Amino acid sequence: MEIKNVCILGAGTLGSRVALQAAISGYQIGIFDIHEKALTDSFQVMKGILLQLEKAEKIQEPIEKILSRIHFTTEMDKAVNQADIINESVTEDLNIKLEVWRKIGEIAPKHTIFTTNTSYLLPSHLAEASGRAEKFCAFHFHDVFYARVVDIMPHPGTDPSLIPLLEDFGKSLNQVPVLVKKENPGYIFNSMLIALIGAAGKLLTGEVASIEDIDKSWMVNFHMPMGPFGILDSIGLDTAWHVTKSRKDTASKDFASLLKTYIDQGKLGEKSGAGFYYYPNPEYKRHDFLN
Amino acid sequence: MEIKNVCILGAGTLGSRVALQAAISGYQIGIFDIHEKALTDSFQVMKGILLQLEKAEKIQEPIEKILSRIHFTTEMDKAVNQADIINESVTEDLNIKLEVWRKIGEIAPKHTIFTTNTSYLLPSHLAEASGRAEKFCAFHFHDVFYARVVDIMPHPGTDPSLIPLLEDFGKSLNQVPVLVKKENPGYIFNSMLIALIGAAGKLLTGEVASIEDIDKSWMVNFHMPMGPFGILDSIGLDTAWHVTKSRKDTASKDFASLLKTYIDQGKLGEKSGAGFYYYPNPEYKRHDFLN
Ligand SMILES: NC(=O)c1ccc[n+]([C@@H]2O[C@H](COP(=O)([O-])OP(=O)(O)OC[C@H]3O[C@@H](n4cnc5c(N)ncnc54)[C@H](O)[C@@H]3O)[C@@H](O)[C@H]2O)c1
Ligand SMILES: NC(=O)c1ccc[n+]([C@@H]2O[C@H](COP(=O)([O-])OP(=O)(O)OC[C@H]3O[C@@H](n4cnc5c(N)ncnc54)[C@H](O)[C@@H]3O)[C@@H](O)[C@H]2O)c1
Repeated sequence: MEIKNVCILGAGTLGSRVALQAAISGYQIGIFDIHEKALTDSFQVMKGILLQLEKAEKIQEPIEKILSRIHFTTEMDKAVNQADIINESVTEDLNIKLEVWRKIGEIAPKHTIFTTNTSYLLPSHLAEASGRAEKFCAFHFHDVFYARVVDIMPHPGTDPSLIPLLEDFGKSLNQVPVLVKKENPGYIFNSMLIALIGAAGKLLTGEVASIEDIDKSWMVNFHMPMGPFGILDSIGLDTAWHVTKSRKDTASKDFASLLKTYIDQGKLGEKSGAGFYYYPNPEYKRHDFLN
Repeated sequence: MEIKNVCILGAGTLGSRVALQAAISGYQIGIFDIHEKALTDSFQVMKGILLQLEKAEKIQEPIEKILSRIHFTTEMDKAVNQADIINESVTEDLNIKLEVWRKIGEIAPKHTIFTTNTSYLLPSHLAEASGRAEKFCAFHFHDVFYARVVDIMPHPGTDPSLIPLLEDFGKSLNQVPVLVKKENPGYIFNSMLIALIGAAGKLLTGEVASIEDIDKSWMVNFHMPMGPFGILDSIGLDTAWHVTKSRKDTASKDFASLLKTYIDQGKLGEKSGAGFYYYPNPEYKRHDFLN
């Protein structure tokens, strides 16, 4: 089966980026959102990214040509009726996603592959609602342009012949496809990131070391531009709190409490101007941080 | 107090590197080992590193000048009798270290600061043996030249006035000093690294993903030159096994068993030519690994 037409559901942060990369890769895109405003914003975001990519000489075609392959619509049917594959990036809410997949199952062409970008749900939570569980698989991007990984995570009922198709499709989108052989919350990378952040949180709440010294240790040993607390600020402390508070060990509970004190002060990380560091010029980016 | 004379105990991998960096920084060094051969090897290792540093224009003085500040000896007294600070890097064995610190406590000048480079013991295991617990602190390097972190980890009886002295001394050695406010096995970095490796091991033994896909996820998301299994190969699977097998959770036990099967086949990582990958050209370093 050849993929030519791609449907993206949800024109938010992630949907816009996936749609854009698919257009850059030459596919025809239909992108659907219930909000007109989301679509107009999405168009602007895409333009901004394309201007950066053009500057960095990372696109071969004129911006207008790439954008002409993307069709923005608030009518689900128009986005879906030609689709060889659907990648769903609507709001991370089980009921919203269930509702969307129920409708898609009713109107999508018979051959269409169904994929979800969910970060915290599992494909088996959604597959049945689509009415075509065997066509359903998680296909989870990271940030598309900087972190170019796509997780392919089938649920037990996924038709195994989808996997090589999705691997090829992932590669065609300039991503590194990785296979999550069985359902795992957090896929591959997030499982490891959560462990790292948990260990950093334990060092902090256990009063073993300061935020800065924990970050320095990571940055200098691995020559990385940020440490666990810098990473937390970029993820968002609210997101980190949601993940941490559901864990049962004492260290996670302590760290969740600490995250909550930051959140209660309005410190959500980079997006709110403050988290563990203050933005836009966090201490860890200063030239003398590692002196 | 001004530090001028530095004593290094143990002329192995780490002692040689610390002694060399101290000489580059302008200190006078006495380096002691019980084995004459360790000292001659150490001299050759230092020369090799200096040639690389000279090529990279990272040293300001002629190699001979730097080496002339280092005095190699099998007589403990000669290395110790002028020392303002001692950094101990003898074999990682409690009894060997206790014996060394007992002798040092008898012969070192009164003002000398006592520090240990131990990776897995705690300073409180050794401080009493030295007879001067208040002068005793862990001062733990990573690899001195690439990973330029030094952990300062006092035990409960360490004189707090040592901390700023050690911070300044660490900086003078071109290191980033970090303070471990209370004794913690694994200091700061290793605590986090062990958590990361544990999560990677759990993904592998749980058959969630392959070695390669786990490493790809880490490498691509963080733009890093290796992932957890590449890191394990460079640490040594035997070392990793020693750390992992002492942990009590099921995932660690499973991963320790898996590491043991590699070790039993002689696969200890990079140093033995094979581990999770094959050396000297491991798959993860190939240009097409991330395609
Ligand atoms: N943002 C990320 O970095 C990221 C990374 C990986 C995965 N994801 C996943 O992608 C999905 C979207 O996340 P996001 O960050 O883009 O969220 P977002 O809030 O930026 O975008 C969600 C979009 O979905 C739209 N929407 C809501 N209900 C809809 C419906 N019924 N039909 C069509 N559109 C609808 C909203 O109007 C909004 O434009 C989530 O499942 C999230 O877990 C996000
Ligand atoms: N290798 C590393 O990357 C690293 C990193 C951080 C800390 N450390 C720590 O540094 C210490 C040394 O590790 P290494 O890797 O250099 O080991 P090594 O085996 O390379 O060197 C140990 C040296 O100590 C000598 N020695 C043994 N008994 C002695 C004695 N009684 N008196 C004097 N010298 C004696 C040996 O002859 C040998 O030359 C250990 O405590 C280790 O945990 C090592």
